Amino acid sequence: MTSTCVDVKELPNSYIFVADVPGLKNTDVKVQVENDSILKISGERKRDDNPNHDIKYVRVERSSGKFMRKFNLPANANLETISATCLDGLLTVVVPKIPAPESHRPKTFDIAVANINFVYK
Amino acid sequence: MTSTCVDVKELPNSYIFVADVPGLKNTDVKVQVENDSILKISGERKRDDNPNHDIKYVRVERSSGKFMRKFNLPANANLETISATCLDGLLTVVVPKIPAPESHRPKTFDIAVANINFVYK
Repeated sequence: MTSTCVDVKELPNSYIFVADVPGLKNTDVKVQVENDSILKISGERKRDDNPNHDIKYVRVERSSGKFMRKFNLPANANLETISATCLDGLLTVVVPKIPAPESHRPKTFDIAVANINFVYK
Repeated sequence: MTSTCVDVKELPNSYIFVADVPGLKNTDVKVQVENDSILKISGERKRDDNPNHDIKYVRVERSSGKFMRKFNLPANANLETISATCLDGLLTVVVPKIPAPESHRPKTFDIAVANINFVYK
C-alpha cells in the first residue's frame, strides 16, 4: 500500500479534500462513502512501462501500487451532494455542509396589559 | 524547498526522467540543461486558495513551495533533441542517446596465397 498525501480544508459551506494522485485520471480513482460517515479514497498507481521495451530503472523514487485513505466525515456533511474531480494529478472532493438550523435568538416583545379589575373573593 | 520524486529509466535509445508534479501544468515547470551536462527540473507548487474565501486548514500533508532537482546527464545524451511533456501531474523528460559508433566486430576472411617462388639470395 503506497502513501497519498491529502489536505483537508473547511470553508463556511463545505469541506474540501485534496489528494495528490500524479499520473492518475478520474477513471483510476474511487471515491466512496462508507456507513454514512466515512469518506474513502482509493486507487492504484502503476508504472506504465511497455512490456516490449527493454527498460532498466536507474533511479526509483516515485511510489507505486494501491493506495487507500479514510476520513471521518463531520455530522453536518451533506452526503447526498458530494462531488469529486480529478485534474492535473489532483483529486478534489467537495463535501457540502448541511445548513445549520436558525439559531435561537433572544427576542424582546411586548405583552398587552389588559384593563381588567381582578376581584379577589 | 519542497521535495519532488523522480524516476530515471534507461531504454536502448534514450533516458527518461519522470517527476511527480501534481497540480502543475506545463507552464508551471521549467526544464533546463546547464553546462552541457546537467538536467535541471524546477517549479513551484502553490496552494490555489481564493484569498476572498474564509478557509481553515484542518489537515496539511501535501507539500508546497519551490522545488528543484538536478541530474548529471550521461556522455551519450543528445542535448539537442531533449523533449518534455507535462500531463496529469507527471512531468516526463526524454533524453535521446547519441547512437554509438559501429563497434569493431572480429572479421574472418581469406588471404589469397600467391603462387610465387621466393628466391633467396
